[in-house]
Amino acid sequence: MPGTLFLIVGPSGVGKDSLLDGARKALEGAWFRFPQRVITRLADAGSEDHIPATETSFEDMVSAGAFVHHWKAHGLRYGVPNDILSNLQAGINVVVNTSRMEVETFKRKISKTVVIYINASRDVIEARLRERARETEEEIINRLERIVEQSPNTEGLVEISNDTTVEEGTEKLIEVITGSCDLYAKVDKLSVDFGSKALCLLHSGNQVATRLLAGSERVRLCANNKSITADLGWTEAEAFLAKDTCAISEKVLSTLGVKSGHSVRIERSPTPKSRVILQKKVRGGELNSDEIHTMVRDLVDGAFSDSEIAGFLVSASRNLTINEVIELTKARAQYTQKQKWNAEIVVDKHSMGGIPGNRISPIIIPIIAAFGLTMPKTSSRAITSAAGTADMMEVLARVDLTPDQMAQIVNKTGACIAWNGRLTHSPVDDVMNSINRPLGLSSALLDISSILSKKLAAGSTHVLIDLPIGPQAKTVSQEEGESLKQLFEAVGAGVGLKVHANLADGTKPVGHGVGPVLETIDVLNVLSNEPGAPQDLLKKSVQYAAHILEWTGAVDKGQGQGKAMGIVNSGEAYEKLQEIMQAQGIQSKKLMPGRFTSEIAADRSGTPPAKRR
Amino acid sequence: MPGTLFLIVGPSGVGKDSLLDGARKALEGAWFRFPQRVITRLADAGSEDHIPATETSFEDMVSAGAFVHHWKAHGLRYGVPNDILSNLQAGINVVVNTSRMEVETFKRKISKTVVIYINASRDVIEARLRERARETEEEIINRLERIVEQSPNTEGLVEISNDTTVEEGTEKLIEVITGSCDLYAKVDKLSVDFGSKALCLLHSGNQVATRLLAGSERVRLCANNKSITADLGWTEAEAFLAKDTCAISEKVLSTLGVKSGHSVRIERSPTPKSRVILQKKVRGGELNSDEIHTMVRDLVDGAFSDSEIAGFLVSASRNLTINEVIELTKARAQYTQKQKWNAEIVVDKHSMGGIPGNRISPIIIPIIAAFGLTMPKTSSRAITSAAGTADMMEVLARVDLTPDQMAQIVNKTGACIAWNGRLTHSPVDDVMNSINRPLGLSSALLDISSILSKKLAAGSTHVLIDLPIGPQAKTVSQEEGESLKQLFEAVGAGVGLKVHANLADGTKPVGHGVGPVLETIDVLNVLSNEPGAPQDLLKKSVQYAAHILEWTGAVDKGQGQGKAMGIVNSGEAYEKLQEIMQAQGIQSKKLMPGRFTSEIAADRSGTPPAKRR
Repeated sequence: MPGTLFLIVGPSGVGKDSLLDGARKALEGAWFRFPQRVITRLADAGSEDHIPATETSFEDMVSAGAFVHHWKAHGLRYGVPNDILSNLQAGINVVVNTSRMEVETFKRKISKTVVIYINASRDVIEARLRERARETEEEIINRLERIVEQSPNTEGLVEISNDTTVEEGTEKLIEVITGSCDLYAKVDKLSVDFGSKALCLLHSGNQVATRLLAGSERVRLCANNKSITADLGWTEAEAFLAKDTCAISEKVLSTLGVKSGHSVRIERSPTPKSRVILQKKVRGGELNSDEIHTMVRDLVDGAFSDSEIAGFLVSASRNLTINEVIELTKARAQYTQKQKWNAEIVVDKHSMGGIPGNRISPIIIPIIAAFGLTMPKTSSRAITSAAGTADMMEVLARVDLTPDQMAQIVNKTGACIAWNGRLTHSPVDDVMNSINRPLGLSSALLDISSILSKKLAAGSTHVLIDLPIGPQAKTVSQEEGESLKQLFEAVGAGVGLKVHANLADGTKPVGHGVGPVLETIDVLNVLSNEPGAPQDLLKKSVQYAAHILEWTGAVDKGQGQGKAMGIVNSGEAYEKLQEIMQAQGIQSKKLMPGRFTSEIAADRSGTPPAKRR
Repeated sequence: MPGTLFLIVGPSGVGKDSLLDGARKALEGAWFRFPQRVITRLADAGSEDHIPATETSFEDMVSAGAFVHHWKAHGLRYGVPNDILSNLQAGINVVVNTSRMEVETFKRKISKTVVIYINASRDVIEARLRERARETEEEIINRLERIVEQSPNTEGLVEISNDTTVEEGTEKLIEVITGSCDLYAKVDKLSVDFGSKALCLLHSGNQVATRLLAGSERVRLCANNKSITADLGWTEAEAFLAKDTCAISEKVLSTLGVKSGHSVRIERSPTPKSRVILQKKVRGGELNSDEIHTMVRDLVDGAFSDSEIAGFLVSASRNLTINEVIELTKARAQYTQKQKWNAEIVVDKHSMGGIPGNRISPIIIPIIAAFGLTMPKTSSRAITSAAGTADMMEVLARVDLTPDQMAQIVNKTGACIAWNGRLTHSPVDDVMNSINRPLGLSSALLDISSILSKKLAAGSTHVLIDLPIGPQAKTVSQEEGESLKQLFEAVGAGVGLKVHANLADGTKPVGHGVGPVLETIDVLNVLSNEPGAPQDLLKKSVQYAAHILEWTGAVDKGQGQGKAMGIVNSGEAYEKLQEIMQAQGIQSKKLMPGRFTSEIAADRSGTPPAKRR
């Protein structure tokens, strides 16, 4: 029940009616209801806007179940209509004028209640009672005598002193009400598109919202157990949105999984608790496990501004300890789409890229899968080279698989070669990359945490890293490569992954062709043992496959090379690739190079001179 | 003349009319006009939507000055109406179909022109001429023969090949037109308020804007020789803004100094040239003078995103050389409000704050001014203590002076004690502080560049820095103080300011009172030589005043102390303060402490134990 029931109590003559009337005028609308009570008093007898009833008609209403609760006080009977229950259910907050004697009964019936006790000094109350002249002198004295024992003894009571003006008292009551309830609003799609920003627009004529959110630059929106922080905007134009709704941007709609007409809860955006953690890192401090996990959670929740994220990332690129990288990797994995496999050993392979034609995965994977190990591989499309593994595989088969399709294929064939776009989505990557790119920020440690967090989420147990070293490769020097290797393996061990990084020759392209089709021809030639197949591609692939077989204990040391080559020579690897293609869905593309081709002949024979290191 | 005149030329049969027709349909509206030409050809004779005229009526129009330019070709007369001049003046771009022979005449008359030459291969043109069947066989052959010499020999010509479909040719023409003109739009105030953000909202039905700005997340808006980069938003709702206007946020309106109905130029936001400079700093590099000035200019222009600024500031807080701080100080000063004084020596004093009651400025300033030196002092309100110098001075006189008022007062009395809020506004501070604060970033070097840039802009020659050292002061240790002193003085020397930083005792409050009124009482007691006046306040103030007198060469070494004390003892300093108060405008506040007071008695006599360092 998302709405809050406010029970307003306090001695007669304290001015409750005037304060409630003021609050009603300010707040009543889609977010608050001040239901009229049914009272066995004439319509013109008092100041309150109640529904008058005779004893008989009241009794009829009780029999008909018209009241959520009814009581007797000072010779009169009071009833609160039943329909406040559906109001509360719909997220509307209900404010009811009642007596301290009835508080516990209300609380038993409705769980989310706030009791507000309005009080004033005896002198003030006496003056007010005499002024309204509703009671006899004797009644007045009676009432005054009861004041001392009036404060209800209930949990979470909020007391308001109404000793000064009605305006001040009303203001206090409104403050307490708006400050202690949840604000729910129907949402609308924001008809202003500022890109991928999280925005929430409210109407400045909406008094509840302006009171609750005054001074806030950001708000927290919650629905479906999800939340997101959005920039808060205001408009006076009814054309943009109705007073009692809020308009939210596409980013907010999709993050919360809501549609126009759904309700969201709106809260002041608290200063994220992890801001002090972030500031610690900005000052160069080291964060512990809890601090990193809290920070990453708030990062995904959108609690930080872009400049805060940038401050964190620049600091992190300057100093991160191995322990920080390990915890960061674990935290990132928690927010990455997870996969599970029915296998003790799940192999993955990741290339640090940058070498054209280095298409070893589609050869290694059929070898490993033909041997009987599980290797569910997801790959990117081209980033720095002419083709990514996904681009190449797409020449042969469908690669845009859903997680379910991928699971089916791997369970059937032991492997797959899929595009990672729909499979390993990492919201942490999204946030970090959008900040890192314009800053031109690159950090090996942050990269490693990103790569290994995805392997962790994808259920891998053994990850082989291909680390080509060469003047045009991502890693230029042997020293840099050695350091990266150590980092990969240390972080892997820290998160419970067996990681082996292999420094490879990255001084020249691999295979004969570059680009999806030519690389596919190379791969097929290698697997079908064609005499003209590129021997460097075969050699590197078999070497890596052999390493995996020995490393995972699948074959004895020294046996991997022979075993892997045997699987290629026997045609088993080729058959396995065909099986995987079949399972993924064969594409009927012809293995033809592009429309425009150009032959560039070398002006002499030989190999390039040794590069300078 | 802000509009651009596009002259479309090209051989007959090349398809000019079709392409122009397509472009007209896509672009014509508030930002583009495709004027009809007057031609001595029947209305139904051709494909172009022209205004037909007889030889006589054409001649009449020429006599009446109806044409900005007219010409004869292939036996027909062509005239372009004069009113395109007022269109161009109003920022509307005009697209005119003309002949290559007329280009230079147009260019002489209208300075901002772009010539677009539409061409096609001879075969394509021949086919098109035959198809439209407007010319005789002989005319067709004639025209084809002229193609070779057709390309106009004019500066900045853009050539479009119309060899494929009309759609492709039209697309190319639209691309060239929208890519080479300035986009002007009437502005409206954005009725959505997202705080202090720079926002620009355009209508997504505005085809010109969508073409020109597709894919841009930010735009550059220019008017009155000012420019600002704003986040770009789109809406489909006409309720928000008319199709051909743009709605901009308060921040953009005020920065450009425009109002609803004014025009602004809208440009794609170029990747700031200084992004590579910023990235260099983010990677830890050292920037030279040019690089720092370029960066600061783009920072003020709003060319960087918050995350880029944060990246820069976090990096700068980690490493800045003295030279970088010097150049940064100069660059910041350039964007700070400037003041000039008719004096060779202009003294200023700045306290690094944090010590309650340390109200020495209102004593030093009257001494220095009574001696005859110029000391135009601006101060902040309270930041870390109970009162700033401006808060204290406001007890006695008006402090919210305009630059003109300040100049008048200083010229008359030699000094002032004014609030800096309206006097030393620094847009660089605004940008940097808004990012630094949530990051909790503090950097002595960035602080020094901010402080000294304002002194530089304020026309100071000598700046005395009061640097209290103590466990509760801003500077905690002697070492830190020494290092700050060196930095202040080195950067001062680098920017041409004489700076002296004095390490002072910051272990306890100064004077007897804390807060505006009590500190004012202390100051007045000191200056009027009351027996009970706080001696520590007197001593520190006289010491600093003496230092200034000797330092500036106003009195000989060793004479400062006696001279300064003499000015206090003689009552000259008190009189000078009264004179300054008079000039600023006396406030009639009573020197009464606040409504609530509490006396806290020490439980023993003595002084606090020596603090641990």
